[in-house]
Amino acid sequence: MQTLPHCETLLLVKQGPALHITINRPDSRNAMSLQMVAELATVFAEVESDTSIRAVVIRGSGGHFCAGGDIKDMAGARNQKAGEGEADPFYRLNRAFGQMIQQVNESSKIVIAITEGAVMGGGFGLACVSDVAIAGPTARFGVPETSLGIIPAQIAPFVVERIGLTQARRLALLGLRIGAEEACALGIVHQAATSDEELNDMLTQTLERVRQCAPNATAETKALLHRVGHESMNGLLDSAAEKFAEAVQGNEGNEGTMAFMQKRTPAWADTE
Amino acid sequence: MQTLPHCETLLLVKQGPALHITINRPDSRNAMSLQMVAELATVFAEVESDTSIRAVVIRGSGGHFCAGGDIKDMAGARNQKAGEGEADPFYRLNRAFGQMIQQVNESSKIVIAITEGAVMGGGFGLACVSDVAIAGPTARFGVPETSLGIIPAQIAPFVVERIGLTQARRLALLGLRIGAEEACALGIVHQAATSDEELNDMLTQTLERVRQCAPNATAETKALLHRVGHESMNGLLDSAAEKFAEAVQGNEGNEGTMAFMQKRTPAWADTE
Amino acid sequence: MQTLPHCETLLLVKQGPALHITINRPDSRNAMSLQMVAELATVFAEVESDTSIRAVVIRGSGGHFCAGGDIKDMAGARNQKAGEGEADPFYRLNRAFGQMIQQVNESSKIVIAITEGAVMGGGFGLACVSDVAIAGPTARFGVPETSLGIIPAQIAPFVVERIGLTQARRLALLGLRIGAEEACALGIVHQAATSDEELNDMLTQTLERVRQCAPNATAETKALLHRVGHESMNGLLDSAAEKFAEAVQGNEGNEGTMAFMQKRTPAWADTE
Repeated sequence: MQTLPHCETLLLVKQGPALHITINRPDSRNAMSLQMVAELATVFAEVESDTSIRAVVIRGSGGHFCAGGDIKDMAGARNQKAGEGEADPFYRLNRAFGQMIQQVNESSKIVIAITEGAVMGGGFGLACVSDVAIAGPTARFGVPETSLGIIPAQIAPFVVERIGLTQARRLALLGLRIGAEEACALGIVHQAATSDEELNDMLTQTLERVRQCAPNATAETKALLHRVGHESMNGLLDSAAEKFAEAVQGNEGNEGTMAFMQKRTPAWADTE
Repeated sequence: MQTLPHCETLLLVKQGPALHITINRPDSRNAMSLQMVAELATVFAEVESDTSIRAVVIRGSGGHFCAGGDIKDMAGARNQKAGEGEADPFYRLNRAFGQMIQQVNESSKIVIAITEGAVMGGGFGLACVSDVAIAGPTARFGVPETSLGIIPAQIAPFVVERIGLTQARRLALLGLRIGAEEACALGIVHQAATSDEELNDMLTQTLERVRQCAPNATAETKALLHRVGHESMNGLLDSAAEKFAEAVQGNEGNEGTMAFMQKRTPAWADTE
Repeated sequence: MQTLPHCETLLLVKQGPALHITINRPDSRNAMSLQMVAELATVFAEVESDTSIRAVVIRGSGGHFCAGGDIKDMAGARNQKAGEGEADPFYRLNRAFGQMIQQVNESSKIVIAITEGAVMGGGFGLACVSDVAIAGPTARFGVPETSLGIIPAQIAPFVVERIGLTQARRLALLGLRIGAEEACALGIVHQAATSDEELNDMLTQTLERVRQCAPNATAETKALLHRVGHESMNGLLDSAAEKFAEAVQGNEGNEGTMAFMQKRTPAWADTE
């Protein structure tokens, strides 16, 4: 990424091996608009091929992560008519969000969500596909869709993948809102900070760990984790052994082994 | 359900949008008999088509939820012979229970289990398919089958779905009995009350949340949750987007959007 | 097992219904060598047909469970060339470990891991396939592979099966090391002891529970648990009902029912 793409709903800052994305629609508590969905998809697509970026940190401006879908886009879809052979506007609106979520979920980079204030609906879905999620003291999580007469269609499946059916059914069917501590106990987030300072410390420590781990090995490991449960264990382990043989004989494997024997830091941990 | 079905092993009371089922065989700690299995199946079948019912609350009389399978039915099966071309009586006894459990699991209504005293064997299995499970202070959970030389055949699979393989293997293979707090930590129940008063408060709050959520949207969401992991994520999300488009343009979607804009309670939350 | 197999990397002691395996390479913190993998595979294969053994307890000598793969075997593989038509030496090294892990996972016996000190890489993987894992106060868990430029190829899939994708992605992608309490909260182990005495008490209680449970019923239940999620629930429950009918009419089912009615201990609980 020689130049960061221009975005209207996102602020982008590159710092060391991390790209920091700030969702920047504070007036609507960072409600997820169609434009924001498109911009997140563009940024994550560009990041894939940028070897200088190892982690993507997502947070919201103005004290909120993301309050859910944008009411204006919903109203817009209501006024549209599907053209002949075209999908229903609500279908397209909804599925576009889900496609972006799938893309973030499967990003080869380490995705870190810093969740504060409202983490609702689509914002909750986005948090559920991060590799590391840390909650600040003000964070509130929920999928309130059914209380509005609609369904968390593109979100609920990722909530099940995140916390399992047992907790997802109570949370989604009752449209509950929960705080950071309960979200941590359920596994929506991995850590809950009790102050902004602690939140920043946790992020700093996470990014330090990102720096210690070899980028390609990390990407291969993430791809492997996503395959579990979707194919036979035998086939998966055969394929994983091939990846292992490649990794150990590749650049990172050689550098890692040498650094270990020479009791020095491997090259990938030296970047700033 | 203009008239509630007549049951010998269950007490049925309709209150607001909830049907309250009390398992009523206190002399045998509400042991699950063949008749009880049949009556639960009948009630859940009738409830499906009754739009006035949104939640089903299951609890036991006499301080126990359900102590497991009925010894008398077991003895009865032992004295039966399978007729030509007929399944073994033990097979039929066991599978009938599992079919009822599957039916409760997939009910379109919100199923709430209030677990007290013995929650063992089949009773444990029944608790594992609820959408919301709350434990009272006396609740004891376990699958003691292997200590009796038999297997928790129709129960163990739902324990794995409920709490995952890791905890299920220890619990089922050692035939352990655990209390409410541990059951809550494992996710068998969602909440553990430390007094009867707190138990009733938790139920009241749950039923209040049921009232706030649109019935059809809730049923669609529950069906969606159950599909996760059983089909490809892409296909599931495509189908979910169709359901979303239907919901948002349907009666509940219109009413929910209007109520939200008019800052009033939606019609479905006004029922008593 | 009339005679225990001769092993160079393992100490074997039979005590009552349990075989105690002590991984015995304390100089290398019980690093998992190719020989150790082969010996564990041999022991678990022999144990399968030995009805006098109901549980296998695995622990490490010298205060560590197992620190991961052996560097010397890695160096050896690096110096080997794959012969024509032969798999890469790294592939074979890696896959052999995974095959042993699969074998332990599916053992019909109750596998108990006593985890102390380093429980890293392959040692972590081994702990993840136990039926009961208990951590001592010194235990440290981690998959540090990506920090060495390689991937936890045969381990990560079992970490996902053990603790779910959500926690596995953070743990594996950041190469974190965690203590016993956090490992217990995540479900890597079932219990965390705060002293060696408590650790031994927990093991004693677990073995006492093993004694109470019928061996064949336990093996059938374990096989059943492993099938959940890998086939349709309907088919699984049909098959489970057949197993139930067999169990209840078999030797253990008869003895268990008789013992229950006669208020005595069943025969299988009397062994010493």
